[in-house]
Amino acid sequence: MSRPASSISRSELPIEPLRALLGDRVSTNSSILEQHGHGESWHPLQAPDAVCFAQSTEEVASIVRLCAANRTPVIAFGTGTSLEGQVQAVEGGVCIDLSQMNRVIEVNNEDLDCRVQAGVTRLELNHYLRETGLFFPVDPGANTSIGGMTATRASGTNAVRYGTMRENVLGLTVVSASGEIIKTGTRARKSSAGYDLTHLFVGSEGTLGVITEISLRLYGITEAISAAIVNFPDVRSAAEATIQTIQLGIPVARIEILDSAYMKAINAYSKTSYPERDTLFLEFHGTTAGVAEQVEMFDEISREFGAGGFQWAAQESDRQQLWRARHDAYYAGLAVYPGYRGYVTDVCVPISRLADCIAETQADIAASGMFAPIIGHVGDGNFHATIFIDPDDDAMFAKALELDKRMVERAQSMGGTCTGEHGIGIGKLKHMRNEHGDGAIAAMQAIKAALDPHNIMNPGKVVDC
Amino acid sequence: MSRPASSISRSELPIEPLRALLGDRVSTNSSILEQHGHGESWHPLQAPDAVCFAQSTEEVASIVRLCAANRTPVIAFGTGTSLEGQVQAVEGGVCIDLSQMNRVIEVNNEDLDCRVQAGVTRLELNHYLRETGLFFPVDPGANTSIGGMTATRASGTNAVRYGTMRENVLGLTVVSASGEIIKTGTRARKSSAGYDLTHLFVGSEGTLGVITEISLRLYGITEAISAAIVNFPDVRSAAEATIQTIQLGIPVARIEILDSAYMKAINAYSKTSYPERDTLFLEFHGTTAGVAEQVEMFDEISREFGAGGFQWAAQESDRQQLWRARHDAYYAGLAVYPGYRGYVTDVCVPISRLADCIAETQADIAASGMFAPIIGHVGDGNFHATIFIDPDDDAMFAKALELDKRMVERAQSMGGTCTGEHGIGIGKLKHMRNEHGDGAIAAMQAIKAALDPHNIMNPGKVVDC
Repeated sequence: MSRPASSISRSELPIEPLRALLGDRVSTNSSILEQHGHGESWHPLQAPDAVCFAQSTEEVASIVRLCAANRTPVIAFGTGTSLEGQVQAVEGGVCIDLSQMNRVIEVNNEDLDCRVQAGVTRLELNHYLRETGLFFPVDPGANTSIGGMTATRASGTNAVRYGTMRENVLGLTVVSASGEIIKTGTRARKSSAGYDLTHLFVGSEGTLGVITEISLRLYGITEAISAAIVNFPDVRSAAEATIQTIQLGIPVARIEILDSAYMKAINAYSKTSYPERDTLFLEFHGTTAGVAEQVEMFDEISREFGAGGFQWAAQESDRQQLWRARHDAYYAGLAVYPGYRGYVTDVCVPISRLADCIAETQADIAASGMFAPIIGHVGDGNFHATIFIDPDDDAMFAKALELDKRMVERAQSMGGTCTGEHGIGIGKLKHMRNEHGDGAIAAMQAIKAALDPHNIMNPGKVVDC
Repeated sequence: MSRPASSISRSELPIEPLRALLGDRVSTNSSILEQHGHGESWHPLQAPDAVCFAQSTEEVASIVRLCAANRTPVIAFGTGTSLEGQVQAVEGGVCIDLSQMNRVIEVNNEDLDCRVQAGVTRLELNHYLRETGLFFPVDPGANTSIGGMTATRASGTNAVRYGTMRENVLGLTVVSASGEIIKTGTRARKSSAGYDLTHLFVGSEGTLGVITEISLRLYGITEAISAAIVNFPDVRSAAEATIQTIQLGIPVARIEILDSAYMKAINAYSKTSYPERDTLFLEFHGTTAGVAEQVEMFDEISREFGAGGFQWAAQESDRQQLWRARHDAYYAGLAVYPGYRGYVTDVCVPISRLADCIAETQADIAASGMFAPIIGHVGDGNFHATIFIDPDDDAMFAKALELDKRMVERAQSMGGTCTGEHGIGIGKLKHMRNEHGDGAIAAMQAIKAALDPHNIMNPGKVVDC
């Protein structure tokens, strides 16, 4: 089913009709093209031939219809923060920048949901919600667009309690490969009415259509929030404490691991004096009494596994200081070898295998001689080794690729996945078949061919394996 | 895209090769055929031409390959408890009965998941789990098979806290329309690796493939469980109390409404003396302190909305007695007019519209002169009017159909769905286009045609609209 890029004939760009439609919101300026030809990863720049700044679903549909008529590739673009080459224009074509579609369309307080245009970022949404007592929990770190998060099935630190984009997208407006506007889902919380198109588009990375509007679940901000930090003798103890926390149903909102290598880098960068041991950062949400109970239960569990240095922070300023260390980890890593860049890996395993997977990965890293500290959403079994590399050292880059490949194969052999939250793009294509098997890949490719028969929607990605 | 049944040429049944494969586990006995030609609803019997009792995924694949070669329809069968004609053999063909695939394949305590064959029922699974401290929460009432629940995207009373099958299926084994075995999902809790085939098959009602194995999320049984019952002056007050409960984040495990008509029937049937008012049945799960706090918070909310008669039951025997009234509601309704049958409706609306939707429905029922008490999973916005009808009275049946149609159109006009949990089958086909629009229906039909090009998988259902 897989079609090499060269088998599809691509006509000329429909530049004149695009200009007639959008005026100066079409650009072929080289710096604009370059800016839209990469995410935040190591994947080389592949610029589109034109960038269109759309302001409505109808405009997106018109752009796609013009591209469809010419068999011109269409690539949706949010904030350009993807990590696996999702926005690279591998066959050229038209990039649709959705950042001007940044309107919160509606918030339904009683239903705990909202609808936004795809270009709204998660911080913009939470700023908009600030007086409602509600918030949108999915937090992948960067201030990404909701459209991009939806397309990538993103998650991040709060997923252990609130779920990923998979659990929090209720419905979509999507422009199909032929330029038709499709609505998926209803405003009801559940439905058994037909195929779940919403979940099919969530995580499809622009290869089945362009997501232009998203309905999202919202949550009430709880009465009490406390953060905590605690360190362990080793990764295994931290993982076992996490497993027991989840098994006992303690509704922890965040439970993040940073290994001793990262803690050392953080101390150097942030002038802190945390014990340089494998450390969990946590957050508890609930009623005042409920949070106190959660903290007490977790404290007891963690002591069983040899934890020390338990500190907790109930005031917002203290919490922010504690989380700053977590958020600055990447910069702390960069500061260890000035001029290096981070190559971010992203595996996810069943939580019962997490300790083994991290321990084996740490041994692999040590043997490789690379500097690659580990950070992870340990409650989900998802972790990242950030491999810091000299961008001018090709041999070092090749070693990083090999290390990443071994990490993925280790995770897959443990029943896990090649990507917990960053997606496939072009970077993880080579791991798809091993993960899913030929039957599932054939089904995915059949769906792609059915919904995008001329392969114009972000070609070369996700299922082109 | 829609293909009338008659446009596909169906060859003879592959009965001889099926017998060679399965021996006496193929039946053409008329009572066996009849038993497999209907669910529990009013839809007329449409028996298959043969029933195969499969014992493994490989056998299912062999059966499907034989059917595919002859273009013979294939209908998967679990416990026959569906409500919208999902198992009716509208074009004849081979029914695959999965009840002998009833093995719990594995339970992973640390990962809070398990894997079962499709024929395992939810009570069998929970019985199997009884010594683990874990349970599977989705409870649609009947003792349905996990495969059937997955295929229908079922839910029920616990969905407000634990989610529906959509949220609780982690991965599948599916036999495709060509008889290939596909595995979807991994054992990791989250993944961004490609299209979400799991969610595509969940709720596809056997039209895209036969589900043979299911990985499920499990949950720890909480330290404390309390049930409660409380009545309200009207449906609106009960709905408002529910909305506030959800908004405050009280993690109620069950919150069910029975209207005054149902409470009256229950008193007569169960010799109880509940106030004959619109009533909520609730269950709270958590730590001892947490449950006490939830009960206190709910008590305060419900009093604001004029609630009375608040009783709660912490002991298991008391809880079971309280829920018995809820579970016996259908039989209580039947007892009002002996010889009548229940016609069950199933709409779901945004919770903010629930009070309006129920109140308008009650007025519509009153005007119709039918006996149709209301029961609902009010935390999800999902409710059922059970229209009790004389099976020999065609005019009464026609009135029930009309009432149901108005209920669906009312729910859809409020942003809701024609089915919260029973599925489409053949019964709700006529409402699909109004709910999803032509664009989404075309996408569903394109997916169906791509994965089942000869339309042999449960033809005439879900997307044949």
